[in-house]
Amino acid sequence: MSDMPSSIVIHEEGPREGFQIEPGPISSADKIRLIEALAETGLRAIQVCSFVSARVVPSWADAEEVVAKVRTKAGVTYSSLWFNDKGLERALAFRDKLALSGAIALCSSEAFTRKNLHRSHAENLEAMRKQTRLHVDKGVPVRSVGVMAAFGCNFQGDIAPAEVVRTVREGLEIGAECGVDVARVSLADTMGWATPPRIERVIGAVRSAWPDKEISLHLHDTRGMAVANAMAGLRMGVRRYDSTVGGLGGCPFAGQKGAAGNICTEELVMLCEEMGVETGVDLERLIEVGRMAEEIVGHPLPSELLHGGALNAFRRAVH
Amino acid sequence: MSDMPSSIVIHEEGPREGFQIEPGPISSADKIRLIEALAETGLRAIQVCSFVSARVVPSWADAEEVVAKVRTKAGVTYSSLWFNDKGLERALAFRDKLALSGAIALCSSEAFTRKNLHRSHAENLEAMRKQTRLHVDKGVPVRSVGVMAAFGCNFQGDIAPAEVVRTVREGLEIGAECGVDVARVSLADTMGWATPPRIERVIGAVRSAWPDKEISLHLHDTRGMAVANAMAGLRMGVRRYDSTVGGLGGCPFAGQKGAAGNICTEELVMLCEEMGVETGVDLERLIEVGRMAEEIVGHPLPSELLHGGALNAFRRAVH
Repeated sequence: MSDMPSSIVIHEEGPREGFQIEPGPISSADKIRLIEALAETGLRAIQVCSFVSARVVPSWADAEEVVAKVRTKAGVTYSSLWFNDKGLERALAFRDKLALSGAIALCSSEAFTRKNLHRSHAENLEAMRKQTRLHVDKGVPVRSVGVMAAFGCNFQGDIAPAEVVRTVREGLEIGAECGVDVARVSLADTMGWATPPRIERVIGAVRSAWPDKEISLHLHDTRGMAVANAMAGLRMGVRRYDSTVGGLGGCPFAGQKGAAGNICTEELVMLCEEMGVETGVDLERLIEVGRMAEEIVGHPLPSELLHGGALNAFRRAVH
Repeated sequence: MSDMPSSIVIHEEGPREGFQIEPGPISSADKIRLIEALAETGLRAIQVCSFVSARVVPSWADAEEVVAKVRTKAGVTYSSLWFNDKGLERALAFRDKLALSGAIALCSSEAFTRKNLHRSHAENLEAMRKQTRLHVDKGVPVRSVGVMAAFGCNFQGDIAPAEVVRTVREGLEIGAECGVDVARVSLADTMGWATPPRIERVIGAVRSAWPDKEISLHLHDTRGMAVANAMAGLRMGVRRYDSTVGGLGGCPFAGQKGAAGNICTEELVMLCEEMGVETGVDLERLIEVGRMAEEIVGHPLPSELLHGGALNAFRRAVH
């Protein structure tokens, strides 16, 4: 367990991931209420919205209103997501309020690239090249190469670690061409194919190729493996995780209706807390926010811990 | 990973654990239908009922009817549970059909012993001494010492590994007094307090004290940690797991309404299958039975894999 980190950074994506997939409608006021409550839990990085076409994701048509009205808290970083130059333009209007940071977003499955982005892998590489140049021109830092479906794909099956390495290399080359030394590789289990040994193999392969890049994990709980996979990540020394309060979210293009969403932030926090890995998050307060999220979306969320309750509350009751 | 077993034994407890906690009523015919379907999945050990007071657990008032009518399959072992001499007497009526096997059932939390069994730890030791003698008299083998709340307790808080070792020792001493060399120690995370490092510490302590005893794990998913805990068990070489299809079950006396039940059999099977650990179970068939279980209880079960679907089904669709 020598690789276990002493602390991790959690990138809370509940608002962005969650509200994009909920049938809704969810009011801008409720979105803002959730974001503001999350900022009070000790979370230091919150992704608050997606600047995406209102035609494709109608539930984020109010991205501007949410960002304009949300009250920010010192010490918390607020991020957003975009997929093209139009999205970037919309985000740039908030560059004083949001921490804008670009990603070179690739996918190790050609089939999923077509399903999700409606283009070939080669076309996506070209789009990312163009987008990275645009980021550089606009002075927006490009901090990560993202690899979707890095552990398997509903439309292409198993993905070999070598394929992931190849995809990361393509992303880093795009960065280099644009004069950007990208510091982070984000590996996403978009459709829930990962298991602990697969996490170890893929991370091992990426780390062997680039020992100095920071690795982050974006895990989905589609098949109930997310916490075990996070545990494998921790043992491999991974210090950065995306997660969503209550397990909000899920991929709208994965072709699995009813499937679970992202790894629950509160379960990730409990796992870390019980092992002495610092997250900065007040778990009991976070569980309260998870219950608020259930109330906002109007149905139970997949998090078990929301319903089981934090150990510390029981510990206090005993003593 | 040198301790990883090449195969595990799954003790399916869905019918017993599940139907004891479901608000029901569930017909005997549905219980039988589920048991018979489970036997077709490759599972080799199924706990089919609880011979318990109909006053305490009304949903098992029909235990006799279920056992009498269920069609058994060669190669599958059918077990049952009882807590006292009355229960044992009822079970003995089916000794030709059921594989009767007793347990010395203890609890490492005095507070939970009182809550669950309405007696002190000392009184429970005495009850188990008496019950073990009765088993011996009746020719019923006593195969395990069970320790409930081995990883923590909602009513007593954290449980030190040394306390678990002490409880196991008391159980083995009862066995020895009755002339029984108990071969197995079953560690139960009754209220979902375990995390992977805690699993390692407790198993390590028990194994150091008794290197030759078989260890089995009974995991609950109360706080979403069950699969990660099973993974920790596998890495520690544990070869026997209790689980329930769909994640049926949960402890009626744990004081947590709405909390998740046991570790899902299908998620345990997927974890093993993806690592080359043999379970003998046909995962896709098991998932179908999980959906049948949801239909029988009339609400969604906590298993994520039931809704996410088996990887092999996607792999086949690709090729």
